[in-house]
Amino acid sequence: MERVRCKKLIDKIMSADEAAMFIKNNSIVGTSGFTPSGYPKALPAALARRVENGENIQIDLITGASVGPELDGILAQKGIIRRRYPYQTNPDIRNSINSGKIKYNDIHLSHSAQYLKYGFLGQIDTAIIEAVAITEDGGIVPSTSVGNSNVIVECANKVIVEINTWQPQELEGMHDIYSTSNPPLRKSIPIINVCDRIGTPYIPCNPDKIVAIVFSDITDKTNKVAEIDHNSKLMAENLISFLKAEVNKGRLPKDLLPLQSGVGSVANAVLGGLCSSEFSNLYFYSEVLQDSALDLMDCGKLVSASATSLTISPERLDDFYRNISNYKDKIILRPQEISNNPEIIRKLGVISINTAIEADIYGNVNSTHIMGSKIVNGIGGSGDFARNAYISVFTTQSIALNGRVSSIVPMVSHVDHTEHDVMVLVTENGVADLRGLSPKERAELIIENCAHEDYKKMLWDYYISAKNKTNNSQTPHILREALSWHERYLETGSMK
Amino acid sequence: MERVRCKKLIDKIMSADEAAMFIKNNSIVGTSGFTPSGYPKALPAALARRVENGENIQIDLITGASVGPELDGILAQKGIIRRRYPYQTNPDIRNSINSGKIKYNDIHLSHSAQYLKYGFLGQIDTAIIEAVAITEDGGIVPSTSVGNSNVIVECANKVIVEINTWQPQELEGMHDIYSTSNPPLRKSIPIINVCDRIGTPYIPCNPDKIVAIVFSDITDKTNKVAEIDHNSKLMAENLISFLKAEVNKGRLPKDLLPLQSGVGSVANAVLGGLCSSEFSNLYFYSEVLQDSALDLMDCGKLVSASATSLTISPERLDDFYRNISNYKDKIILRPQEISNNPEIIRKLGVISINTAIEADIYGNVNSTHIMGSKIVNGIGGSGDFARNAYISVFTTQSIALNGRVSSIVPMVSHVDHTEHDVMVLVTENGVADLRGLSPKERAELIIENCAHEDYKKMLWDYYISAKNKTNNSQTPHILREALSWHERYLETGSMK
Ligand SMILES: CC(C)(COP(=O)(O)OP(=O)(O)OC[C@H]1O[C@@H](n2cnc3c(N)ncnc32)[C@H](O)[C@@H]1OP(=O)(O)O)[C@@H](O)C(=O)NCCC(=O)NCCS
Ligand SMILES: CC(C)(COP(=O)(O)OP(=O)(O)OC[C@H]1O[C@@H](n2cnc3c(N)ncnc32)[C@H](O)[C@@H]1OP(=O)(O)O)[C@@H](O)C(=O)NCCC(=O)NCCS
Repeated sequence: MERVRCKKLIDKIMSADEAAMFIKNNSIVGTSGFTPSGYPKALPAALARRVENGENIQIDLITGASVGPELDGILAQKGIIRRRYPYQTNPDIRNSINSGKIKYNDIHLSHSAQYLKYGFLGQIDTAIIEAVAITEDGGIVPSTSVGNSNVIVECANKVIVEINTWQPQELEGMHDIYSTSNPPLRKSIPIINVCDRIGTPYIPCNPDKIVAIVFSDITDKTNKVAEIDHNSKLMAENLISFLKAEVNKGRLPKDLLPLQSGVGSVANAVLGGLCSSEFSNLYFYSEVLQDSALDLMDCGKLVSASATSLTISPERLDDFYRNISNYKDKIILRPQEISNNPEIIRKLGVISINTAIEADIYGNVNSTHIMGSKIVNGIGGSGDFARNAYISVFTTQSIALNGRVSSIVPMVSHVDHTEHDVMVLVTENGVADLRGLSPKERAELIIENCAHEDYKKMLWDYYISAKNKTNNSQTPHILREALSWHERYLETGSMK
Repeated sequence: MERVRCKKLIDKIMSADEAAMFIKNNSIVGTSGFTPSGYPKALPAALARRVENGENIQIDLITGASVGPELDGILAQKGIIRRRYPYQTNPDIRNSINSGKIKYNDIHLSHSAQYLKYGFLGQIDTAIIEAVAITEDGGIVPSTSVGNSNVIVECANKVIVEINTWQPQELEGMHDIYSTSNPPLRKSIPIINVCDRIGTPYIPCNPDKIVAIVFSDITDKTNKVAEIDHNSKLMAENLISFLKAEVNKGRLPKDLLPLQSGVGSVANAVLGGLCSSEFSNLYFYSEVLQDSALDLMDCGKLVSASATSLTISPERLDDFYRNISNYKDKIILRPQEISNNPEIIRKLGVISINTAIEADIYGNVNSTHIMGSKIVNGIGGSGDFARNAYISVFTTQSIALNGRVSSIVPMVSHVDHTEHDVMVLVTENGVADLRGLSPKERAELIIENCAHEDYKKMLWDYYISAKNKTNNSQTPHILREALSWHERYLETGSMK
């Protein structure tokens, strides 16, 4: 109860079942949540109960990014989600999307915030925001992520706050909430250093907009730390050697520039590798902070980290919360409109490290689709970072599915990052530095340095035939064969 | 002579042939020039003469964007260009690129400036900059374009200035030169209105870096105004109706937001259409200003225009120069690092209008390649604008080559603008507003509203088969058929 510091809101406290009655059929619902952190957990269950009891409810669901099973999972299972923006990773949602049950628009995360403000995605009716507290004036103190929460609160007709008492109040003070105006009134965003604070530690909200407050006590379903496998370690070594060489050539400052990285095994290996490297005074300007960021702080290498989500593994969480004061002044959680903003990423000169599902010999990257048709997750923030980075790196293992698939192909089956946006490609086999090269030079480097031995000859064969067939044109392709590797996989189970 | 106001530079005046001796074999040369305007004309001819006289000279050529025949044309013909960045439109260059003689890296125009500063493209040895004057302190006053000139001067070992007396001195004062620092020292760019001036009217240059000054008197080879054909008129009408509807829905201010548009028939038709529309108080934040911008100023609709190049047709030029004082305070010419800067484009909320060679049913756009392999021009600034625009529009005729080719295809043969970046597609047949839609919804809209009658059924057939074959997945494709239309064209001369 002490968590609701705005006295006039006390009488808005109710059960999740009562609050869920505010959600209308056919409406747009926006929630907190980013990379299974800080999403509402009690309200979706209550909404699902309405449907179990026979009501017909369909909503469009807008979040920051991916959320946990208590939201995406249960609502997808009950068939409650009609549309979904802007990013997801939940298996139930994914299956519903790939069978046409849910309409999914895969949006750059930084764009999603402004599309909401511009009204491009419709009028949000209800916001559901997980919080650790409500301030004296109705300000909402987010929990482990900010995502689009501030924008959703700003745009929604009404707001439901889910206060999660499992989330410690000490999170208060970590957030920095700032919202841009719409053009023509937009100003420069006054961040010029990773750790600049420019806003408020809570989401401003007119208390009259808050129609319900619900208490919950359910943990974030964050992911376990991905094991660092052998190939991830090799990729990390390749990448760190590349960065060292850039410093030696005078093309990067000796303390590097702020780093962004995705999640998963390679990211962990890279950040682990930095821990034991000669680099120090590091900064992160990223989307998500994981255990590896805490490790880098512990070893004194990471000065400050900005992100929009804190997704600490279950194993590490107790320790983190016990020692939160050690970390608090080093971590800033911002809205994704800011964490992923082109203006800031370009100003700071972020080094971005993202994952490809597959890359082609000319440097185009597919981050979202399997064999052209099935979506995995979505583009997330990878485009925001890659396009605006000082150096944009993509990593991928050279093969997938036990070698039945080559992740280096003649032509990717879907393009998320074009040849214009991919500067460096890293696999366990090596690095292809594509900057300034023509497509044909890129192809030779990617095949030689990055592809797997089992597929090298096939790639050379394709490339040389394409060169001959097109009289050595800018980007040689034999269109009949360009996607034949994928077809072969679909037909035989292997690209070989 | 009065044009060289820095007295100590007077003795650097020499003939083009003498100045051309400063250019070294195997070196990187950066020049002024953007969309056939403001490029050096006497120096390249002198360089070509050295080769005609038996010398072996190979250079990497970096410009702002496309330049005229006196530079790209002659140097390509003589085989002098080894590498070319970042954009070209010259037939000789294009042929050399598409036969493997010139290595071409097709870079977002706003990226090209910072790649130079970061050292990613190598050390520029010689800068050759067309100017209308040199100031008392050695400042270089550009002529009809800025492009990358300021960055090239900043990065080059030595500078040759080509003073073109055909270009009127009254151009002085139109430019606003501002250069960003490299991270970690980069600041926000203080432009919040189209007409904000933030820099100097000349390119700052240490006079000691200027090794030669050459006089020339050769006109820019700007293009004639493209005739507005029937289909361009229809596309413009479709687009203007769309913008009106957005205003009516409250999703655009009544005076719109700053406009960017490419060049050519459609752009002319759109800008012509605005002249006779109810819109007023318009602003341009674009790359290139053409005759149509002057028309819009004449009819009192265009308040102010910012670009990096002024490419007035030969027919209109005399009139423009006679009345330059009417236009001068309404036009700002900026470096392309600024005209195309994501930070500013997003801050101002630019409405971007660019051209597609082809688009696919899911909203991916190809702006650069014919049938996947041959490059036309390059991505230019279209990516800078489309990715950061308030609304990003792509226009294309629904068919090309007299109907033997559909510009709406199952899958584009090259991707420059991904499904994540294309909000609105316009053809002569109609508009597809893709915002917020799933790929399948986009496909239905694009086929129905944008495709040509002759290809509609074929597109529906592909789409429905793909849906069936992939069990209604996110982005249904039959990879064996996805590029078969292009193959058919290559084999039979028609997609039908
Ligand atoms: C690209 C991305 C899907 C990779 O995720 P990951 O967990 O590192 O990769 P995995 O190796 O587990 O691959 C994911 C799936 O794709 C499959 N896959 C990977 N490479 C493949 C390939 N070349 N061909 C076919 N399938 C492939 C894997 O088998 C796996 O399938 P499964 O879940 O059925 O086992 C993920 O990083 C992503 O969603 N990126 C986009 C968003 C983003 O970059 N966000 C963070 C930065 S801001
Ligand atoms: C896309 C682009 C090439 C279109 O140019 P355009 O002059 O309007 O288009 P055209 O209709 O003349 O087409 C150019 C060529 O492509 C061919 N073409 C056009 N559509 C085609 C299609 N769908 N399939 C095959 N060929 C096609 C035309 O026949 C023409 O060939 P030709 O020169 O041999 O006659 C041009 O706008 C461009 O380079 N854009 C990228 C850069 C940019 O957008 N810059 C400005 C904004 S910042």
